[in-house]
Amino acid sequence: MSETYAFGIDVGGTTIKHGLFNGKGELLESWEIPTRTEENGKNILPDIAASIRGKMKEKSITAADVKGVGIGVPGPVLEGGIVNSCVNLGWGVVDVQEELSKALEGIPVEVGNDANVAALGECWKGAGRGYKNMIMVTLGTGVGGGVIINGRILPGSHGAGGEIGHITVNKHEEDACNCGKKGCLEQYASANGLVRMTRKTLARKHGQTKLVDDETLTSRLIFDLAKQGDVVAKQCVEDMCETLGETLAQVAAVVDPEAFVIGGGVSKAGTIVTDTVKKYYLPAAFHACRNVIFKLAELGNDAGMYGAVRMVLQK
Amino acid sequence: MSETYAFGIDVGGTTIKHGLFNGKGELLESWEIPTRTEENGKNILPDIAASIRGKMKEKSITAADVKGVGIGVPGPVLEGGIVNSCVNLGWGVVDVQEELSKALEGIPVEVGNDANVAALGECWKGAGRGYKNMIMVTLGTGVGGGVIINGRILPGSHGAGGEIGHITVNKHEEDACNCGKKGCLEQYASANGLVRMTRKTLARKHGQTKLVDDETLTSRLIFDLAKQGDVVAKQCVEDMCETLGETLAQVAAVVDPEAFVIGGGVSKAGTIVTDTVKKYYLPAAFHACRNVIFKLAELGNDAGMYGAVRMVLQK
Repeated sequence: MSETYAFGIDVGGTTIKHGLFNGKGELLESWEIPTRTEENGKNILPDIAASIRGKMKEKSITAADVKGVGIGVPGPVLEGGIVNSCVNLGWGVVDVQEELSKALEGIPVEVGNDANVAALGECWKGAGRGYKNMIMVTLGTGVGGGVIINGRILPGSHGAGGEIGHITVNKHEEDACNCGKKGCLEQYASANGLVRMTRKTLARKHGQTKLVDDETLTSRLIFDLAKQGDVVAKQCVEDMCETLGETLAQVAAVVDPEAFVIGGGVSKAGTIVTDTVKKYYLPAAFHACRNVIFKLAELGNDAGMYGAVRMVLQK
Repeated sequence: MSETYAFGIDVGGTTIKHGLFNGKGELLESWEIPTRTEENGKNILPDIAASIRGKMKEKSITAADVKGVGIGVPGPVLEGGIVNSCVNLGWGVVDVQEELSKALEGIPVEVGNDANVAALGECWKGAGRGYKNMIMVTLGTGVGGGVIINGRILPGSHGAGGEIGHITVNKHEEDACNCGKKGCLEQYASANGLVRMTRKTLARKHGQTKLVDDETLTSRLIFDLAKQGDVVAKQCVEDMCETLGETLAQVAAVVDPEAFVIGGGVSKAGTIVTDTVKKYYLPAAFHACRNVIFKLAELGNDAGMYGAVRMVLQK
């Protein structure tokens, strides 16, 4: 029998990452194509299918050689691989599993939410290696989350498994989250959330600081100044990590993981993130959940591609 | 081939419920024995084994006819069926799976935490029938919880899966929970929690009420008076259900269930519990998690016996 292959696809708002893997899960090649979001993103699935077919032709791979295509998309995924609205792609309800499989001679397709798929990738080949039960938190513009139980994604009944960015952490918040609620974790612990809360601090009476409330204010700058000892920046980082650590303690009481992996742009600040989050996690966690690992993500933007193919290989 | 059988055992602090089931999961007979907690509960497993052996002899069932024994215990259960301390039974670390199996000619044994096992029972034969992803909340002296994903218990890495009674809901609480933390859900939403909070209300300036802070004050009385229109009792019930509903909304953002089943002594108050909890759940929940069912548990004290045998039958 000839070698088997699988593809892992990660669909982002600007580019689509593709990975060709062998049946053992080794990455053979990766490439990107742009995400064409015009006309409600109607070209996205045909573009992916064409890209996969092109690679198959180039490598003389037949459909029978391909175990499947795994794909991560930025939206809620329902049972059967149906995606229920991806704002960033212009999609409404799209049957990704059926449409993509049809365009690929019936090659099986597995679909997952991008944050969940990234969590699976980190669990399989990244910072979560060796842990069966793991939670990944992605601190980017928003806060994404993925829950891995027994090495598999917990997708949820409405595609909202691991939506920890929308846990309410402050019922007295007056500003609204993008989701419409008020006081979501994402409003405090994302890059935007940190900037938002730092602006509020700067608008109040505060100590001496190099932080200025103008367009230069970014989460990266706040972390950089915190590391340099800027007292106000340090306090803003502490506040953010306190909110996140305490919230993860509540999450732990529900799913009791072995490890938390923190990724996304904000995590590039390094172990200051994991160390500070863990400091606030420990006293807030149920005693049985305190023996838990906090690690920085390792796969960066490739996590989704790895997790996507993993969905196929673990079928 | 002769018919197959399985046993479901639910170990409580005062009695141990036994159920004999056929291979189709139909209950053939149930009975109880007392829980002998003296001498660190060293008689408990031998008593259960003797009781099972006696029933097998009575019915002429051989070990080869028994698919397995499922057992729920009031403590954290680690991988491999090892129980890590059951205070109510006097147990430290006990390898329940191995010890009980050894005493039963090698019949396979499955061990689960009692709250998790009750959740599985309700999911299989009770209020959660038809739902694959379900959360059961047991409102008794404390608050127990069980998370069912894809029809199976989520046990957690340290046996703490579904410990939602120990989610922190008020970080400013000054009284300590039994677990050592302060501000756990259990301190507000259990029978004891409702009484505790009602006492605080009665100690403050309050409206006219039939409630009196003496030994007659129970969660049942508070619910009864609330149903009769007692304004103070009503407010105490509202406060309790608000705390519970908002907390379940946060739990939903993690595991995204189809249904919440509420059981335990407090739930005997009836649909006032599910209706009021849902009223506070809905605005607090992430939009994708709002289409969820709230039901009262149906199996009462038999839930554990059913869930215990289910662990065996679904192997």
